[in-house]
Amino acid sequence: MTTETPDRIEDLAGPSGFGDLYARVQRFYAHQMQLFDLHDADGWAATFTEDAVFSVPTLDEPVRGRPGLVANVLRNRRRQEDGGEQHRHWIGMLDVRTGADGVLHTRCYALVHATPRGGDSRLLRVCVMEDELVRDGGEWQTRRRVVTRDDLA
Amino acid sequence: MTTETPDRIEDLAGPSGFGDLYARVQRFYAHQMQLFDLHDADGWAATFTEDAVFSVPTLDEPVRGRPGLVANVLRNRRRQEDGGEQHRHWIGMLDVRTGADGVLHTRCYALVHATPRGGDSRLLRVCVMEDELVRDGGEWQTRRRVVTRDDLA
Amino acid sequence: MTTETPDRIEDLAGPSGFGDLYARVQRFYAHQMQLFDLHDADGWAATFTEDAVFSVPTLDEPVRGRPGLVANVLRNRRRQEDGGEQHRHWIGMLDVRTGADGVLHTRCYALVHATPRGGDSRLLRVCVMEDELVRDGGEWQTRRRVVTRDDLA
Repeated sequence: MTTETPDRIEDLAGPSGFGDLYARVQRFYAHQMQLFDLHDADGWAATFTEDAVFSVPTLDEPVRGRPGLVANVLRNRRRQEDGGEQHRHWIGMLDVRTGADGVLHTRCYALVHATPRGGDSRLLRVCVMEDELVRDGGEWQTRRRVVTRDDLA
Repeated sequence: MTTETPDRIEDLAGPSGFGDLYARVQRFYAHQMQLFDLHDADGWAATFTEDAVFSVPTLDEPVRGRPGLVANVLRNRRRQEDGGEQHRHWIGMLDVRTGADGVLHTRCYALVHATPRGGDSRLLRVCVMEDELVRDGGEWQTRRRVVTRDDLA
Repeated sequence: MTTETPDRIEDLAGPSGFGDLYARVQRFYAHQMQLFDLHDADGWAATFTEDAVFSVPTLDEPVRGRPGLVANVLRNRRRQEDGGEQHRHWIGMLDVRTGADGVLHTRCYALVHATPRGGDSRLLRVCVMEDELVRDGGEWQTRRRVVTRDDLA
């Protein structure tokens, strides 16, 4: 049954408390971003739900489902290999609030740092990332992501 | 009664523990910085105590109290709109220690990233931020902030 | 007795839980990086075990033990003073997993931001940092660190 009332964060956190919830979400993002930067397409896609919707301004339309997410990682790998650059995705300023039915809404900033082999690192991109996270047996997964870029705002 | 002896972090944290305290402070800063970057003047000012003192090198003298804080946000909004840039404030390397009477002293790094519309993002500023936080019915508030800029050091 | 089986993160975290563990490791790194940037050689070296091994690409061979770590800080201080620059080390995307015998393995990203006096800040370096942490009476210490730089990859 779908309810319209947001859960309280305390209810979503459960007996282990807000600190546990927040730490697990931070670690989830750390792990998810590392998998992306390692071009681990399957590992990264598995951090999303099967039917996840992923919207970023660089894609003409939202990606829906894991096969599309896998293809996204592979395309990024190809681009970085062609360009000889290593990208690092960096999440911060993580705010969280609860929706209904156990959904956690997050809003955070995302940076991309790029480094060419033998060259100078640079700040490539500044983004805002909004996720809906759901729990699958203890582990969080992203079921919906909307990324906006400051340069395209 | 004012005491001179610092509280133990365990006492300040209470039964929910250090993890809960640290996570709540992280989320507090995430929320506070997002409000500033959204130019939500009243929302941002409400994350400070009524009599907060706010010292940054770009102001000739410290701001005292919420009306001054609101004015600070509005001035920043105007500047960014004039310049056509989006700023993002980013906190990290958050260290915490306790003072007396339930005060939490924090020391962290603060970055500002700037992005012009259609242009390249850049690292605008590197700062050190020192706060005194107090709790107002469960929620933290800043009662004193001192920011120093590395370029002006 | 050395075992080959990794501890469960729950066992390593103990009754205070994962949130407490993760927060303490975050604060450990915040404190450690601040000490380095303050050129507090002894304070920084004390965040490592006596026999710690520290590998970074800018050193010809790994540093072993605290006297070498102290020398490393002093060398960095001299370089920054000569160059008139302030460096800030910034850790993020912190992932953790357990090894055997109470060892915590971390993998995170590390940025260095540099700011000349009166000049523009810049992103100096993007690194990946892998640590083995052990607990010494409640506090974590680094016993082994391997840093790789994206520009030298």
